[in-house]
Amino acid sequence: MTAMSPPPLASWNDCAAKSAIFTFVRNVADASSALFVPPAERIAAIDHDGTLWCEKPQFVQMTFILESLKGRVDAIPALAGNSLIRAALNGQSAAGLTMAKLIELASAAGAGPTPEEYEASARAWLAGARHPRFHVPYTQLVYQPMIELLHYLRDNGFKIVICSGGGIEFVRSIAEELYGVPREYVIGTALDYDLKEHNGRLWLDREPSLYGPGNEGSGKPINMQAHIGRQPIMAVGNSTGDIEMLRMAQAGRAASLCLMINHDDAEREYAYPAQGVPAAARRHGWHMVSMKNDWRRLF
Amino acid sequence: MTAMSPPPLASWNDCAAKSAIFTFVRNVADASSALFVPPAERIAAIDHDGTLWCEKPQFVQMTFILESLKGRVDAIPALAGNSLIRAALNGQSAAGLTMAKLIELASAAGAGPTPEEYEASARAWLAGARHPRFHVPYTQLVYQPMIELLHYLRDNGFKIVICSGGGIEFVRSIAEELYGVPREYVIGTALDYDLKEHNGRLWLDREPSLYGPGNEGSGKPINMQAHIGRQPIMAVGNSTGDIEMLRMAQAGRAASLCLMINHDDAEREYAYPAQGVPAAARRHGWHMVSMKNDWRRLF
Repeated sequence: MTAMSPPPLASWNDCAAKSAIFTFVRNVADASSALFVPPAERIAAIDHDGTLWCEKPQFVQMTFILESLKGRVDAIPALAGNSLIRAALNGQSAAGLTMAKLIELASAAGAGPTPEEYEASARAWLAGARHPRFHVPYTQLVYQPMIELLHYLRDNGFKIVICSGGGIEFVRSIAEELYGVPREYVIGTALDYDLKEHNGRLWLDREPSLYGPGNEGSGKPINMQAHIGRQPIMAVGNSTGDIEMLRMAQAGRAASLCLMINHDDAEREYAYPAQGVPAAARRHGWHMVSMKNDWRRLF
Repeated sequence: MTAMSPPPLASWNDCAAKSAIFTFVRNVADASSALFVPPAERIAAIDHDGTLWCEKPQFVQMTFILESLKGRVDAIPALAGNSLIRAALNGQSAAGLTMAKLIELASAAGAGPTPEEYEASARAWLAGARHPRFHVPYTQLVYQPMIELLHYLRDNGFKIVICSGGGIEFVRSIAEELYGVPREYVIGTALDYDLKEHNGRLWLDREPSLYGPGNEGSGKPINMQAHIGRQPIMAVGNSTGDIEMLRMAQAGRAASLCLMINHDDAEREYAYPAQGVPAAARRHGWHMVSMKNDWRRLF
């Protein structure tokens, strides 16, 4: 830190979660502490939608998928004969579909591009799209207090894993730029690939089926194990689908820290309950982070 | 490098492959070169069995699995009623089974331990087991020239990914210690997990089915994409199952380097042909590394 650097977690008000973060990080990084954790195991798993950036009025990727679907149905009208696609476009059932199902659906309706093409189209869309309420690119709706948390963790030898229910390629397309997280540390709901060859050229084709379990609920610890080979000692989420990830972070080492971001700030963002989360937090001793009271600044 | 450090690749004799490695690494690491590759993309994918350590007279993990199976059949004699298990134990079909099939088989016959328990049992077995010809622990049969290559690549900003047909947990149990490769950079054939709960305690249970494709042939680039999110620019292998991995390393950037280790040294190790590999190497312009002529020292 230079003399001009702000203190860590500068956008956090003094609160129980902030104190708990400082205490936990100091303990696990202190070789003389009984709670010391070697750097290789100092892993923080962080959810994406609603934890690192704004997920309302609907998942950013869902907006991307629905707009892409719309374009495809315009080009190939027969696709509208698919009742799932029609319902999704009419907004009737999109909210009820899991991200995994929607990713499958979008892929099935699409032309099966390569992962590079998919990422490029996601980035191109994100460059032009604007949030309906805040009228800025979605990439500006990243939570500043979380960015500061990532910096503080990295400064103390943590590896950050983004563990998102969203599509792995969608998150990878922005993870390095927005969060400084290399793509191999991004886990998400993933489609299977098929290795294709034509005229001696090889490429990977995205298939309309899942690779491993969808990355929510029990899928999060399962995919963490498959990708990273161990469970985190710290986990941050905001919804029901994060509960298993936080519980597994608690199941290992003596020291662990679990946070749930509580969207209770209708004025600066949105206020919406996360079913079962406050009860789980009470039961397991997790910190609920109030966006309204604990964060001085949001974006 | 200190004044006392040996030069890079000290155990390699002067040969075409050694020159090609130096030229390639210098080019991709030189910001002023037209072939420069940013560090994030400077990824080398390295096969394990027969590329980093000795794989004869049979895969080390296969010996581990067969010995574990034997112990289980002794404990639960009814397992011998399974014709696949009986055949594997009699050595009749083990050679014909793919690693993926054998891992499934071993898992089905086992008690479904957690990944941590599996790794601990692999490490315990490796500590006691001895190679039938060399009479040393298998962990001493690591190729010194490859260790030097890993060092040289890392010194030049490469990330090393071990991409093995073997079981991901088996390789992870030794990768950090033997090769300095963190477990998140190990890809292998992987079993699925199930999240179990009992009395409020959560754990992952290994299931007798595969998570993603078995990591050989087209499975290697597919699992590279899923785990790492991009293809390597350098790949080293030794067998038919590595061909797709090498071809995909060549399919991207202008600069790439592909090596196949040729087991042609019956005196110091084993001499055995790798079907289709020399032809693929000629066709795609890969370097065949002669263990006999190009490596001054093996272990």
